Amino acid sequence: MNAEIIAVGSEMLTPDKIDTNSLYLTQELNTLGIEVVAKSIIGDDRAKLTAAIAAALASSELAILTGGLGPTEDDVTRDAAAAALGVGQHYDESVWHQIEERFKKFNRTPSANNRRQADILDGAEVLPNPNGTAPGQWFSRSGKIVVMLPGPPRELKPMVASQIVPKLSQILPPMAIRARWYRVALMGESDLDSLIAPIYTKYTNPVTTILAAAGDIDIHLRARSANAEEAENLLEDLGSHIESLIGDRIYSNNGDTLSKTVGDMLRALGQTVAVAESCTGGLLGATITEVSGSSRYFAGGFLTYTNEMKTALLDVPSALIEKHTEVSEEVAIAMASGARAKTHATYALSVTGYADGDQAGLVFIGLATPKHTHARRLSLFGDRQRVRGLAVINCLDWLRRSIAHESR
Amino acid sequence: MNAEIIAVGSEMLTPDKIDTNSLYLTQELNTLGIEVVAKSIIGDDRAKLTAAIAAALASSELAILTGGLGPTEDDVTRDAAAAALGVGQHYDESVWHQIEERFKKFNRTPSANNRRQADILDGAEVLPNPNGTAPGQWFSRSGKIVVMLPGPPRELKPMVASQIVPKLSQILPPMAIRARWYRVALMGESDLDSLIAPIYTKYTNPVTTILAAAGDIDIHLRARSANAEEAENLLEDLGSHIESLIGDRIYSNNGDTLSKTVGDMLRALGQTVAVAESCTGGLLGATITEVSGSSRYFAGGFLTYTNEMKTALLDVPSALIEKHTEVSEEVAIAMASGARAKTHATYALSVTGYADGDQAGLVFIGLATPKHTHARRLSLFGDRQRVRGLAVINCLDWLRRSIAHESR
Repeated sequence: MNAEIIAVGSEMLTPDKIDTNSLYLTQELNTLGIEVVAKSIIGDDRAKLTAAIAAALASSELAILTGGLGPTEDDVTRDAAAAALGVGQHYDESVWHQIEERFKKFNRTPSANNRRQADILDGAEVLPNPNGTAPGQWFSRSGKIVVMLPGPPRELKPMVASQIVPKLSQILPPMAIRARWYRVALMGESDLDSLIAPIYTKYTNPVTTILAAAGDIDIHLRARSANAEEAENLLEDLGSHIESLIGDRIYSNNGDTLSKTVGDMLRALGQTVAVAESCTGGLLGATITEVSGSSRYFAGGFLTYTNEMKTALLDVPSALIEKHTEVSEEVAIAMASGARAKTHATYALSVTGYADGDQAGLVFIGLATPKHTHARRLSLFGDRQRVRGLAVINCLDWLRRSIAHESR
Repeated sequence: MNAEIIAVGSEMLTPDKIDTNSLYLTQELNTLGIEVVAKSIIGDDRAKLTAAIAAALASSELAILTGGLGPTEDDVTRDAAAAALGVGQHYDESVWHQIEERFKKFNRTPSANNRRQADILDGAEVLPNPNGTAPGQWFSRSGKIVVMLPGPPRELKPMVASQIVPKLSQILPPMAIRARWYRVALMGESDLDSLIAPIYTKYTNPVTTILAAAGDIDIHLRARSANAEEAENLLEDLGSHIESLIGDRIYSNNGDTLSKTVGDMLRALGQTVAVAESCTGGLLGATITEVSGSSRYFAGGFLTYTNEMKTALLDVPSALIEKHTEVSEEVAIAMASGARAKTHATYALSVTGYADGDQAGLVFIGLATPKHTHARRLSLFGDRQRVRGLAVINCLDWLRRSIAHESR
């Protein structure tokens, strides 16, 4: 089966907008063995969109439309799909009722134009949207399928996972797919690639995909076979090779984030962590607590942006700051010790550094454990947000290795 | 003039590939006053690409094709463009000579199939490519233009800057462009749209684009005219209408973020802010400090995830927590008061709430000012990350209004 993806909306055609939905959809479709042969972004233009849908259906079995299902005149997806398929639309009272219920839940009243969102293509199946007002639609006729999904990723993604993938799986021939998702902290993309490319390029099954962000690399392996055990073996064969090459720089083999991985380790051991942050200003704490249930191991934190606060909240001696400056190994150590003492946490992490300016990227991180307190000097490269993000990853990965080491 | 951008190549259709050329091209075209009305990525399929080029030319004056100009059978752009335009191709000896020279420079010999790269559309102008073997082509006929450019950004970008932009500028009438970028906190997209759509839909110039994220909406206005003053007047005409409708929910008219806006206000008044965070775990502090120079007004913060820490760090009486629970108006007020007292900041913000679980979305935020300490109850909707993000926006927008009010 071949697919085309069409994103709808003039706001998607600005110089800074990336259609991330199509990347996610491609991933999910490829996993099912469906090839994406074209994708496009069409502005809010009914005639152009109608022509694009018709062209997609002329050569592909599946057309997935994202966005343009809102309540305004600009939202042209429903009308264009109906025109391309040559079917009418009807107003669905039960869909409207759900929209009203949703607004009621938030103590709001739908406006008259929200009624447009209850217009359904004749013959289409309504796809409930638990995270938004616009429902999706699924239209299938003589081997051609048109799917309409809302544009916001937080609405689209759950609908794809819980509705579209299962529906497509039913249609496709049975296929066992096994996947593994490694995550690696603090390796350069080209270093990683020159290490593992000689191995993974030998395999066409599993397929290997590498996705790099600052300080964090994802390695996806996907094996397919008519037989589940065979797919598992293919995966293990390549996976074990990769694991032996990258070693303990792999922090997850199931796609878990670094904060989730560290959190699970702390929880399993009944341990806790506290933070003392200067240049990251809360980003380390925010990252640790993005994990549900983190209250069980996050003991608290101190955002000591100024020297006065470092002294007042963390008992960092002002003489120490004067002697070594606030961005120093000594202050990072004093901050970590202070945070650990004040919170009685098992571990405390600290960060002090320059996120921009002349010395941008010079950062010291500290770690206080039951046994030691250390600091590390980092030379990070990039703009303010990147430096702060990399400082956080360095802290968490250092904590991960320390927990593993101390709990041995 | 309207444009469409078509990227060619199956390798562009993987789950991790972003077509950055189209973002760059959109930027350059918009600056010239050319609107991009559609963009697409087509795999290595001659028939599909031919149809896509023909469709683009049916509704737009300019089609820019990127990629697919290589020497292999997979490189279908030349053939598809010729087919869509109904013209032939000829082998250009001087282009071939340049390709040979380039290979010689790197001590290599072109292969036979490199000759395909010297095939030029009848009537097209050759665009030299100083950074690669494939030249570009410019074909213009009866008001329609097809431009073919190589795919690698380091080849494409210099060609656009030094050849395409100058050529387009000569064709276009002289044009002044003026833009305004409003940002609005805490309005629903459909509420905002039903408020301002009756006005902005009356205008085709300025063009209005609305971009919504959780709790944060961008409104872009872009006016064009042959005359700069006229463009400014058009912008002011629609802009003042929109301002009068949305009022002080607009926090920026130049695209600044909420944290930048609040930071600038604090800095101008020589005031400071501190934070006390529970469920946001540092996200409020991280947001305030994402602004360069925030050390001048960020006094520090407390991440008091547990009740013990609320008492130990912020002097929230444990009896108060017992009586009202940690997610209550009373505790939000005590946290804000405690943070202000400990840091001597002008303002302190606090957040305590449930980011997930049964009562997810119930959040109290507190604000201590020199005059009062208040709390507000929020009912936020969404997953953990969204609830935390919305809590932060609510805090910052409340602070923005308070500063404006108290400094009056």
